Amino acid sequence: MSLTILGCHSATPRTSAHPTSQYLEINNKRFLIDCGEGTQVQLRKYKIKFSNINHIFISHLHGDHFFGLIGLISTFGLLNRKNDLHIYAPTGLKEIIQLQLKTSNSWPQFDIIYHELKNDQSELIFDDNKVEVYTVPLTHRVYTNGFLFKEKIGERKLNINAIKENPEIEICDYQNLKNGKDFVTKNGTIIENKELTFDPNKPLSYAFCSDTVYKPEIATIIKNVDLLYHESTFLKDRQEIAATTKHSTAEEAGKIAKKANSKQLILGHFSSRYTNLDLFKQEAETVFDNVVLAKEGKIITVDNKTFATELTINQ
Amino acid sequence: MSLTILGCHSATPRTSAHPTSQYLEINNKRFLIDCGEGTQVQLRKYKIKFSNINHIFISHLHGDHFFGLIGLISTFGLLNRKNDLHIYAPTGLKEIIQLQLKTSNSWPQFDIIYHELKNDQSELIFDDNKVEVYTVPLTHRVYTNGFLFKEKIGERKLNINAIKENPEIEICDYQNLKNGKDFVTKNGTIIENKELTFDPNKPLSYAFCSDTVYKPEIATIIKNVDLLYHESTFLKDRQEIAATTKHSTAEEAGKIAKKANSKQLILGHFSSRYTNLDLFKQEAETVFDNVVLAKEGKIITVDNKTFATELTINQ
Repeated sequence: MSLTILGCHSATPRTSAHPTSQYLEINNKRFLIDCGEGTQVQLRKYKIKFSNINHIFISHLHGDHFFGLIGLISTFGLLNRKNDLHIYAPTGLKEIIQLQLKTSNSWPQFDIIYHELKNDQSELIFDDNKVEVYTVPLTHRVYTNGFLFKEKIGERKLNINAIKENPEIEICDYQNLKNGKDFVTKNGTIIENKELTFDPNKPLSYAFCSDTVYKPEIATIIKNVDLLYHESTFLKDRQEIAATTKHSTAEEAGKIAKKANSKQLILGHFSSRYTNLDLFKQEAETVFDNVVLAKEGKIITVDNKTFATELTINQ
Repeated sequence: MSLTILGCHSATPRTSAHPTSQYLEINNKRFLIDCGEGTQVQLRKYKIKFSNINHIFISHLHGDHFFGLIGLISTFGLLNRKNDLHIYAPTGLKEIIQLQLKTSNSWPQFDIIYHELKNDQSELIFDDNKVEVYTVPLTHRVYTNGFLFKEKIGERKLNINAIKENPEIEICDYQNLKNGKDFVTKNGTIIENKELTFDPNKPLSYAFCSDTVYKPEIATIIKNVDLLYHESTFLKDRQEIAATTKHSTAEEAGKIAKKANSKQLILGHFSSRYTNLDLFKQEAETVFDNVVLAKEGKIITVDNKTFATELTINQ
């Protein structure tokens, strides 16, 4: 699983501070999360293929989370994209996108499939054989969701040494073993599956939570998540403005990570009021140990065997 | 008069190729022309004060000319702008902007005054004591205007040496002299204005023409313009695609400059198909002498005494 930060700042884009957007690869599926102005340029900068983007999740309809979407869609059109594009977003986005395509008479030749979100309860919104995605209802100034991405449990892994000791097992039996079935020999002896296979890799999960007030109820939904991105627009020195604007502080983000028993916390959506971002890490670390700061171009990779996390800066 | 190029490429924004936007200072008035995605970041990069932008002209509703506008308006809102914002754009833009402000519940505290353009004839759309702006009807795939910015003729300039020779002339008479009035002495002698003043600076003009097919009729509207920006999306090797997509070639841009008797031609809106942009200059120079290539950060200054043009690169 790897997460590339394309933008991690709040409000207005600046030369080296882009608004929210992330690119997630999980179990060989790829997702774009939020799409602030300039996201298409960030995708190019970090060499992410446009053809990898078939599913876009938009948390809420504030500009710093979706103003880049119409430009990305237009570019897909100019590049002669053919694949369907799925967009998971609050009700209202479809009208905004369709109005602009209509006004500019620039209908793309691919289909846009809008999955309009309006539920206040967590719901399953994407489900295939590898990944499922749930909404994480958040509380902000407009209707907002976070998203929980979960790998599905994979096939069991063949224990080739054990299999070799049973010459009756043929290659055509392997899929049954991977699916968890026991093996029955010609003379009727049952060899239990667990003697021939190893457990599959433990499925990984990622939760994206931006923008929101401190909302401890979400910990239940994202319980035991491997990687948690939680907004921390402010430090607790601005607790009051955080409450007024329905944002979180770094300490609150740390509390959510702790309550959810997350393995790692990524902080982002920093207000431009702050120049020393290390203070965010320090504040969150007062309540939760494993904290990293989002940074444009940072790639956070989680290995699903060792759960070790690796950071790369892609500049 | 000075023109700053914020973006001069067609279609999709890339890391170092922004879509159309220009900032014009003329006779101490300031105008933003077109506003492709990322324009607000370009304004910051080239240190143009947001408070200088009170009048925005949008040529047409293709994304590479207006997708940055909603983000700029939102940023104005976040920065607590109070001044009215005037937007001159084709019918349709108002609905797009208002829908997004409504959906995100982000009404700005300043007023946006939409001047909706739909006329197919050139019309005066801005007029104050310093500058007037006319539309230049263009022909593209959607309704499109160029814009002609003209300084108004200024006051006559005092000839201080001549004035000193006439001790009866007091400071309180200066404004009448600047306004062109003759001076009458106590004994009734008339001193003609032209003996006491110099001609005002010749008013300058700038024409912005993008996007359009080759349309020689516009030469009449922009006749004798000092500075002409004309799109040249293609070279003549792609004359056919230029015609199909309703764009111009560099040679055609040169022909317009010649026919309009422009003093200088700036080329822009280059297709990403071309890597060697010098070819555009060479092609236009086969029909018109004074050609420069638009480039992000380039400032083209025209002196209204000498008409000399100066180029600066602001990187």
